[in-house]
Formats: sequence, structure tokens, C-alpha cells
Amino acid sequence: MNPEDVKAFHAKRETLDSEKYLVLKYYLETLVEPREGSAHLCQEMSTAQWHRVGVDEDYRPEFAAKVVDIELLSDHAQPSSKYLADLMGKKYDKVYAFNATIYYPYGNFGKKIPNLLTAVCGEGVFHAPDVCAVRLLDIEFPDSFLADFQGPQFGVQGLRDMLGVYDRPLLFGVIKPNVGLSPEPFSEIGFQAWLGGLDVAKDDEQLGDVSWSSVDERSRRLGKLRKEAEKITGEKKIYLNNITDEVDNLLRLHDVAVANGANAVMINGMTTGFSAVRMLRKHAKVPLVSHFDFMGPYIQLPWFGVKDKVFTKLQRMVGYDVLIYPGVDSRLKASHEDVMDNAKACLDKLGNLKPMLPVPAGSQWAGSLEELYKLLGTIDFGIVPGRAVFGHPMGPKGGAASLRQGWDAVKQGVSIEEYARDHQELKLAIEMQS
Amino acid sequence: MNPEDVKAFHAKRETLDSEKYLVLKYYLETLVEPREGSAHLCQEMSTAQWHRVGVDEDYRPEFAAKVVDIELLSDHAQPSSKYLADLMGKKYDKVYAFNATIYYPYGNFGKKIPNLLTAVCGEGVFHAPDVCAVRLLDIEFPDSFLADFQGPQFGVQGLRDMLGVYDRPLLFGVIKPNVGLSPEPFSEIGFQAWLGGLDVAKDDEQLGDVSWSSVDERSRRLGKLRKEAEKITGEKKIYLNNITDEVDNLLRLHDVAVANGANAVMINGMTTGFSAVRMLRKHAKVPLVSHFDFMGPYIQLPWFGVKDKVFTKLQRMVGYDVLIYPGVDSRLKASHEDVMDNAKACLDKLGNLKPMLPVPAGSQWAGSLEELYKLLGTIDFGIVPGRAVFGHPMGPKGGAASLRQGWDAVKQGVSIEEYARDHQELKLAIEMQS
Repeated sequence: MNPEDVKAFHAKRETLDSEKYLVLKYYLETLVEPREGSAHLCQEMSTAQWHRVGVDEDYRPEFAAKVVDIELLSDHAQPSSKYLADLMGKKYDKVYAFNATIYYPYGNFGKKIPNLLTAVCGEGVFHAPDVCAVRLLDIEFPDSFLADFQGPQFGVQGLRDMLGVYDRPLLFGVIKPNVGLSPEPFSEIGFQAWLGGLDVAKDDEQLGDVSWSSVDERSRRLGKLRKEAEKITGEKKIYLNNITDEVDNLLRLHDVAVANGANAVMINGMTTGFSAVRMLRKHAKVPLVSHFDFMGPYIQLPWFGVKDKVFTKLQRMVGYDVLIYPGVDSRLKASHEDVMDNAKACLDKLGNLKPMLPVPAGSQWAGSLEELYKLLGTIDFGIVPGRAVFGHPMGPKGGAASLRQGWDAVKQGVSIEEYARDHQELKLAIEMQS
Repeated sequence: MNPEDVKAFHAKRETLDSEKYLVLKYYLETLVEPREGSAHLCQEMSTAQWHRVGVDEDYRPEFAAKVVDIELLSDHAQPSSKYLADLMGKKYDKVYAFNATIYYPYGNFGKKIPNLLTAVCGEGVFHAPDVCAVRLLDIEFPDSFLADFQGPQFGVQGLRDMLGVYDRPLLFGVIKPNVGLSPEPFSEIGFQAWLGGLDVAKDDEQLGDVSWSSVDERSRRLGKLRKEAEKITGEKKIYLNNITDEVDNLLRLHDVAVANGANAVMINGMTTGFSAVRMLRKHAKVPLVSHFDFMGPYIQLPWFGVKDKVFTKLQRMVGYDVLIYPGVDSRLKASHEDVMDNAKACLDKLGNLKPMLPVPAGSQWAGSLEELYKLLGTIDFGIVPGRAVFGHPMGPKGGAASLRQGWDAVKQGVSIEEYARDHQELKLAIEMQS
């Protein structure tokens, strides 16, 4: 690229109308110096060929993505992605590692999820010349962009109102076994967990509408038992039905589930598509919940892919009320910083959109409540144990009770070990961990 | 995991009914020996907790994913993903690197794309204990699974029939500039390229239905000019209109485009969602074309993510007729082997599904035809240049002509340099490359 062309993809922030631009932050490793490497990226992700042959025109002033800031991290890094640098077939003995802030004129594609993803994670970004590693770290959206998105219909407050629970984290539980267990015993253990104090009995992300356990039958059985559990306990309950399915089945399955008494539905976000969820949001009568499968390869490496919180913001925009995401658990390969960043992206101001409940997942139990409460600094989160409820030696009722006892200990400012002296369910829960 | 539990996730291939299973091949790096590491993966991706407390039951025989083969690559590897191994917080001084073949009972989730992705790329797979790196290398589908998928409506033969071209690769061209250029001049340069010999004038993957260039206006202008170009040249032509948009707009935009004279539509596969494409396929009247954006982080690393050909098979199953994918170009970070593997996944037998046309992309020109023809060993492919057609010094007509001349040289068995002596367009195309 000649210096004049490089210049066309750089700008001073104050010269740009911030309501017309998304602010993208990328981590980049490039084989050329950062000013040129980031210009390559901008060229590929926006105007590429900016004039016709023999025509005096230049579409870059209005339509080009523009670098406004570069933060050099290293000018003599070994590439994290040595393999990719080698694949590019160019000589290098070091690479430049840096963060680039890029203004992207969203009028190029409009307020649409698929087209946004093409722009910020497309061929241009992941296949730019001389750029061997890319990670999209964050997107900031101007209010004019966000205004088109409905966001959560219920949000944290709406969920609390449904449950009548205002003073503690919300307790989700994944009914297990899930794969193979027929609807009758499946609903029975969900019922037991509600009786023990669970707020939300949920389907596993793997359990959809299948021949051996249809959404229709599960929602009928659990819808009925939910109301029974509400009568017995005097507490409100939620059955979260996983309706993840082909896009043209989603609205129908939602209607079946809700008519039968499911009062929340789960749609695995990445596998079904965020745009399909945006469609469902326009129609939905109950809270929408997302689960994080098909996301691992994007989010797990610090120098490649997309940082979780970008997906978190998008999922809040398309209308999820609850986000289940990788939490504190070595198996889930998320750092404490990631867990916090995602919670903030759920709860912090995002235009006029309601907050979405963060539910960091991962082999949780009664003891996870204090850990997460301290980490996140709020009660506005959920936990979503499986085995700790449904594998508890006293059964799902005992398992759910152990969660409530775990929170009671936090509330009273005593250790769970101390609290467990008079609480058998919690005592056994602690023993399960050792 | 105790040895009995490890055993429950292994099986001899011949004991399993192959019509009930998908065959998954993964590359894995694990902190424990392969037999246990692969069992961890299978447990997480299928039955997890396989019995209720106090109930004598075991859902693994019917519902567990089962390892049938392990190919050890190294038992003293340094983890490719050292960062992830460290994140898992366990001690290790080496890892096991191996390929595992796993039989997955698809009755667990049914013949559905979102649920398939959850099973094979879900939390279970990318967040299994002691598994630090995962790459899904391939899926084989039994005919009983494939029978539910429509696959390409037109396929390679149908496209050839539309164009009346049977003896050479198909010539696509991305109309450029795309971002910013208004529909009138945009359609004029597409028209010029058809006159020069282009088969398919296409929208860029970034150019959707936007305020400054609506699908309606583009398809009206290019639909009309397509018919004019057909009259003038005596050849059939295709206008490929990019209708990538929110899922609930796809069918409407398809109808608008087709009514106006677009005779193929592009939907960016990963950003819109494969399931949405499967929905559109049931309704579509024209060939469907995919583009590879939002796929980079999955496909680029040899030890992580998903190999392209898995996505290629899925896209053929949901009904794409043409696949545009990363081709031979350092910028695109694809090896020659990848380019070939994808072409084979497009063209090889896959149940009763029609072949899908492979279009390896990337800064192509007249000289790319011979290179790809030799690499792929077939004329059943397309190329999709942008600049070589629309940045050609003689204009798009000259650029398109240079492609036809490039193929004529191959057909006559002479070098393009030799052929260029009497063909000015090709001569200038060669000069553009130096």
C-alpha cells in the first residue's frame, strides 16, 4: 500500500460523527508496521476497490473503516499464530502486536446482525493481507444503532418479578439425566427440585424436541407440575424449556411450550443464529435464554477470534433475557476477568436496553454462590448446577435445598461449613465436593 | 473417571448399527492418556450424568457417544494451546496428541442443524475436562440421516444447464467498487462484464439490502441488463444478488430479487445461520450461493476449531448450490490440501445429494484457471475475481474477456503468455500481476 492509501484509512476521532460509527477494538498481529497493517484490515473490511477504472471517484471518505488509535504492545513479537504467519508465505523474523481502535460507518450495511457479523468478523477481517492474528475485543454501538434493537423483554427485573425474588441470586438447575430419560421421570425430578427451593428447572442445552422426549410432552408435564410446586411452596417457579431447533420451527415450538405451561424458553444462540433469535423476540411471550455452545473456538484464545463480551452484547441486543456462559471452572477455560467482563456486558448500560441476567456456568454447587457474589459484586446473577442438585445423595429436593442454604450462609455472614452443622443437605453438598 | 466408566464410552465399531450413528473424527490434545481423555469428551458431549440418584439405570448403552478408534500422534507433545492447558489449572509437562474416531447416536438430537452443532461443537466438546485442544476434522453421515436434507436444488449440472456452459469452469465476478457505488453505475459495470464473457456477475458479500443500494433496485436494474446482455451475446447469464439479511427478511428479499430478474441469490452462511438457509431452500426458485465470512477463527488453526470441509458438507446438506470458500492465496490462509478437500466435499458422493459447485476465492485472475484446474483435476469449479475484471485497464468488458482468453489458452494447451501475444486483454491482465 502506498502512503496516500494508508492515510485514507486513518482519521482523527474528533473529525468523525460518532452517531454514524461503530467503535471496534481489535488485537492484531501483523507482518508490516501497525499503521499499514491496520489500514490493510480497514481496506478489506470496507471499501476495498474504491473507484472504477478511469473514473475520478473515491468512496473512502464516507464508506471506509478508519483507524483512530493504535496501542503498540510489541514490535518484536514472535507471532502467537506462527502457523498462520508461515501460511501467508512471507518472510518475517518478528511481528507487530498491537490493539487498534477502528471507526466503522454502519450505514455500509445497516442495523442487521448477519451483515454486522460479515463486516466485523468477515472475510475482510480474518483474511486481510499481512495480518496473521486477529481478535475482536469489543464493539461499542451508538444509540442510533441500538435504537433498532428490542433487547430483553423481561430483563433482570422482569425475571425477579416473575419469581418474586428480589434479595438473592437466582437458582437455575439443569435437570439430569437429560439424554435418554423419558418425560415422566424427567418431570418428576424437576418437580422435586422446585420443592427443595430451585427457582428455575431447565432442560439441558442438548435436550431439544426429540422422538423420545418431545417439547410438547415435556412442557405439558413440567408446566402442570410447576403450578403444583407453586401451590405447595407458595413460591413462583419457572420451567425453562429448550426449544432449540431448525429456524422455521422456533415460533411453533415456542407457542406449544408456552401454551403447555413452560414460562421461559432456551435457544442455543450460536447454533441457531442470533438473527433467528431476533425474529423470535418479536413474537415471544416468555423470557428467552441463551447457552454458549458452538462458541469455544471463537472465545478461548487470547490472540484469535472474538472476545466473549462481543457476543454477549449482541445477544442482549437481539433480545435474550438470560445469558448462560462459561464461568469459573477449569473445564470451561474462562479467566476470572472474562467472567466479570461478560457479567458487566449483561448488566451495564447499553442504550435503553434492559439488563440481561448473567449466569456463569460450570459444575456449580452451593459454595459457588459466595464465590460469584464476591467476584461480581452483585446479587444480579444466576447459577446453574446440574449434579449438585440432581446428583445430591438426598435427591433433587435435597440438592436444591443445599443451594438455598448456601445462600443463607452468605446472607448471615457465616461460612458454609459452619452453617452446614445444622443443615444436612448443605453438609452432604460439601462432602460431594471432596 | 474410573476404568469402568471409561469403558462405557468405548466400543468396537462392528457392534454398532452404523445407520444410527454419525462418525466424528476429532484431533485432540489431552492432559490424560487418550483412552480416558476421549472418554471425557464423549461423556460431556452425550450422556454426562447417566442415572438418577438411587435408581439402577444406565443410559450409556443407547445414548453415549463412543470412541471406536484412537490414532496416537504423540505422547510427549508440548500443547499447541499452551495457554488453554495452563488455564485448566492442572499440572502437566507433556500432553497426548491424537485423532479419535467417535460414533455419535444421532437419535439423541434428531436431523436438525442447530442441535447437531450443539452436539458436535458444543459446550461438551470445547469444554471437556482435561481436553485442552480440539479440532473437529470430519463428519460422516449415514444415508438415513442425509435422507432428511434436500441438498442443492440445481447443483453443478443445474447451473451448467442455466448457463449452457458444459466445457469449462464457470466465471464469476464480484462487481467492484461495491460499498458506496449507487445501483445505476453498479449495474452498468456488471453489464459490461457480461458482454466481455463473464457468466455470473455477483454482489460482494458485504453488499446487502441497504439504503443507498436496495436489493429491489439492484435486482431490477441488473435483472433487465442481464436479459439485454443475453440478447447481445447469445449466451445465458446469471445475476447473483446478495440478500443476506435478518432471517425474517430472507424469503421476502428472495421473492423481490427473483421477480425483478435476479436468477441466483447469495446468503452468507455462518452469519445468517445454516438453519435459516435450510428454511430458504424449501422456498427458493433460484440457486443459493454461500460465502465464507465469520468462519476464519474456526477453520484457520490446524489444532483447534473445525475443519472447513465439515462446514462444506453442512452447507451442501442445507441446500447451497455454490460454495465460495478460501482458495489459493496467501491472504486467505488456506493450504492447497484444504482447497482440494473442500472441492471434494462439494463434489464427492454425499447420500443422494447433488454436487455443489466449489468456488475457491482469492484475488484471482485469468492465470488462476490453469492453476486450479491442475490442482482440482476437474472443470467443475468456478473462480470469482474482483479486481481482475473490474479493475482491468480496458474496463470490466476487457477484464472478463481476459478470463475467457485465459481458459482458451488452457484448452489449446499453450501458455497464457504465448496466447497473450494476440490477445490484448490477456496481455494487460498479465501485466496487472507484475
